[in-house]
Amino acid sequence: MVTSKPIKVKGQPIGEGKTPSIIVPLIGKTSDMVLAELNQVLGKRPDVIEWRADFFADIGKTDAVVELARRVKTVAGDTPLLFTIRSTEEGGQKISLTSDQVVELYSVVCRHRVADIVDYELGNAPERVDRVRSISKETDTTMIMSYHNFQDTPSWTVLTQKFGEAAKRGADIAKVAVMPKNLHDVLTLLAATLDANEALPIPLISMSMGAHGLPTRLFGWVFGSAATFAVGANSSAPGQIPIEALRQAAEVMRSGMIDE
Amino acid sequence: MVTSKPIKVKGQPIGEGKTPSIIVPLIGKTSDMVLAELNQVLGKRPDVIEWRADFFADIGKTDAVVELARRVKTVAGDTPLLFTIRSTEEGGQKISLTSDQVVELYSVVCRHRVADIVDYELGNAPERVDRVRSISKETDTTMIMSYHNFQDTPSWTVLTQKFGEAAKRGADIAKVAVMPKNLHDVLTLLAATLDANEALPIPLISMSMGAHGLPTRLFGWVFGSAATFAVGANSSAPGQIPIEALRQAAEVMRSGMIDE
Repeated sequence: MVTSKPIKVKGQPIGEGKTPSIIVPLIGKTSDMVLAELNQVLGKRPDVIEWRADFFADIGKTDAVVELARRVKTVAGDTPLLFTIRSTEEGGQKISLTSDQVVELYSVVCRHRVADIVDYELGNAPERVDRVRSISKETDTTMIMSYHNFQDTPSWTVLTQKFGEAAKRGADIAKVAVMPKNLHDVLTLLAATLDANEALPIPLISMSMGAHGLPTRLFGWVFGSAATFAVGANSSAPGQIPIEALRQAAEVMRSGMIDE
Repeated sequence: MVTSKPIKVKGQPIGEGKTPSIIVPLIGKTSDMVLAELNQVLGKRPDVIEWRADFFADIGKTDAVVELARRVKTVAGDTPLLFTIRSTEEGGQKISLTSDQVVELYSVVCRHRVADIVDYELGNAPERVDRVRSISKETDTTMIMSYHNFQDTPSWTVLTQKFGEAAKRGADIAKVAVMPKNLHDVLTLLAATLDANEALPIPLISMSMGAHGLPTRLFGWVFGSAATFAVGANSSAPGQIPIEALRQAAEVMRSGMIDE
């Protein structure tokens, strides 16, 4: 009955195909901080490690970025690494790079094979999205195309269009993260996820943020979200809860589903 | 942000007003079996004990019913007792009583003050519903008016009408339990609960049954359901999960909500 499709890396479903995959972010400012976070987080066995490189103070130094990504990937071992530069427009940190430099950095990271997955926003100019798609495809890197809205929750129509747009532009995974003002918005996000997941061939990741959105972080996977973001060491968005709590809740749900 | 209103007994919110209240059914055929179940269940600290009297072989003997209800209530102590005769039309056991005898048995149970809450179905003839309402009110017994559908999930419109009808007829609590065919039905039940709970002054209890409906048993309380049915010793409907698992999931949700 669970509809979510597993995330694939190099064509293979991660976590033996079991959803939800639990993704934990690393948000350190320095290499030492990122590596310390990584050590703290790995003991909690996340399914994916996300390095939010927009938090990295040396993001302007390409060599430093590649070097740190490589170290993180080496230490993470079999745990796939998701590389993300979140824009300020969609909740990221302010960085010194231009949009073209961001695309170039994604290219270098893909070409050095130091990330298994990259996340690039749908809100970027279409030619930039196409460029990151083309390089990630060449290098067999899984690509998430994402949409974030920290102000409110658009209508079901807009949400399903965002998922559809990502699929149409060739994303391997479509991600939608929005802010609910109330519980009706939470049901809108779940309904859009369920419908888009039935209509589209690719896995989706979706969530309502903040306290109202908590049910989607815990149970969105039942309605079609392949993954959920949890706190390993540090939170990167409002409403993320500890990885242990998330896993516990998923196990309760799974055990109940197996009973029948 | 949680919208569910607590169940009241003798005018006082139960469980210190914290939702969801966890209700566990007793479904023994004999007094010994019911009392054995009760002992097993009480150690798990449910918020309400439901005696499903339609399972009781001696339901035709009024004195036996009153006597057992009294013993259950005495042993249960501060834990409120919900007395229910579920009809076969709505998923109950076959019994020998006529509809009028069922009303009479509810009356006797209320007059002997051996139940804190009674559940009577909205599908009964209006004059019978009025009669049980009038006797339960006289005796300060909380009354649930309920609707069950083990075949499918009616539309949002029908579901909100059921809640509304219960409120209009003077119920203290409106209960709707339906069978989903898919996850869209589950979202319909949650949306109807959220909307009805905002529109009506009384607490609601709602659930989708079966494996698909599990999210509503675990998290329906966030969307306005005051209570959820769990397995203490034995299950009385498809999809009920153990009380420990349910409490654990609610705690995970609560701890996440308190964080912000």
